[in-house]
Amino acid sequence: MATTAKEKGLQDLFNDTLKDVYHAEKQILRALGKMSKAATTDQLRQAFETHREETERQVERLEQVFEMCGKRAQGKPCEAMQGLVEEGKEIMDEFKGSEALDAGLVSSAQAIEHYEIARYGTLRTWAGQLGMQDAVKLLDETLAEEKKTDELLTRIAGETANRKAA
Amino acid sequence: MATTAKEKGLQDLFNDTLKDVYHAEKQILRALGKMSKAATTDQLRQAFETHREETERQVERLEQVFEMCGKRAQGKPCEAMQGLVEEGKEIMDEFKGSEALDAGLVSSAQAIEHYEIARYGTLRTWAGQLGMQDAVKLLDETLAEEKKTDELLTRIAGETANRKAA
Repeated sequence: MATTAKEKGLQDLFNDTLKDVYHAEKQILRALGKMSKAATTDQLRQAFETHREETERQVERLEQVFEMCGKRAQGKPCEAMQGLVEEGKEIMDEFKGSEALDAGLVSSAQAIEHYEIARYGTLRTWAGQLGMQDAVKLLDETLAEEKKTDELLTRIAGETANRKAA
Repeated sequence: MATTAKEKGLQDLFNDTLKDVYHAEKQILRALGKMSKAATTDQLRQAFETHREETERQVERLEQVFEMCGKRAQGKPCEAMQGLVEEGKEIMDEFKGSEALDAGLVSSAQAIEHYEIARYGTLRTWAGQLGMQDAVKLLDETLAEEKKTDELLTRIAGETANRKAA
């Protein structure tokens, strides 16, 4: 018999969110490839490439966390990330060839990063409360990378992309 | 004749993002009402209520920024926020009556906050680059409120909601 809503606990919430983030990361991998191709400066292209490689390792970390939960790694369509990726595509279309394109790409990437910062922050808190210390360590590594990427994008936004657009 | 993609600049990107955030805030107003009703502790209900009142003032600030741009305040469907709100609804359905419900509500609210932190951070940077100092001031006020709300939710997550769920 399926677990009813009332019987569900924090472990169920953790597992659901893990699936959501796993699906989100896979979408991000594809999006970063496209954004990297669209970027018009080497600095921004390099930032996207570096983060794409990082994201591949983040997917592997999530797979390890699934294993720690005794679960098969499995995604669950993440509507928020679908929306974020969709908005990124619109910017790529609507500002193709414009000097503001890079500023728009940075903006989309930062919205994506912040979604991940929120989700990994939540997952690491819950992992701690569930006594999953090994998972906390892995999730913390990824969280630190997401924050670092966001800071780099803020710097790029100030230095190049936006100035060029203005 | 409509502006082609190539002719578009940072001001167009700013205006588009302003419309996106305006629509997002309106969706958040409705979502916060529902989340407040669903919350099972006074502390969390109060946090949602306070932020709903803040959000009303944030909407007014956006209307002032539209005015500064010489534009009529107008929303543009924000797919990312639609996805975030949808995920929040799913948690409310799937964890109704569960001890983990509040933890889930906090998690959804933090994902929403982070979307706003990203967007307001971007808007205030662009406003500065476009020489709109009055807009920078308004956007900074809102950005500070969003960050404060996120910090409060992190504290609540650690103190009540998640512990109860575990």
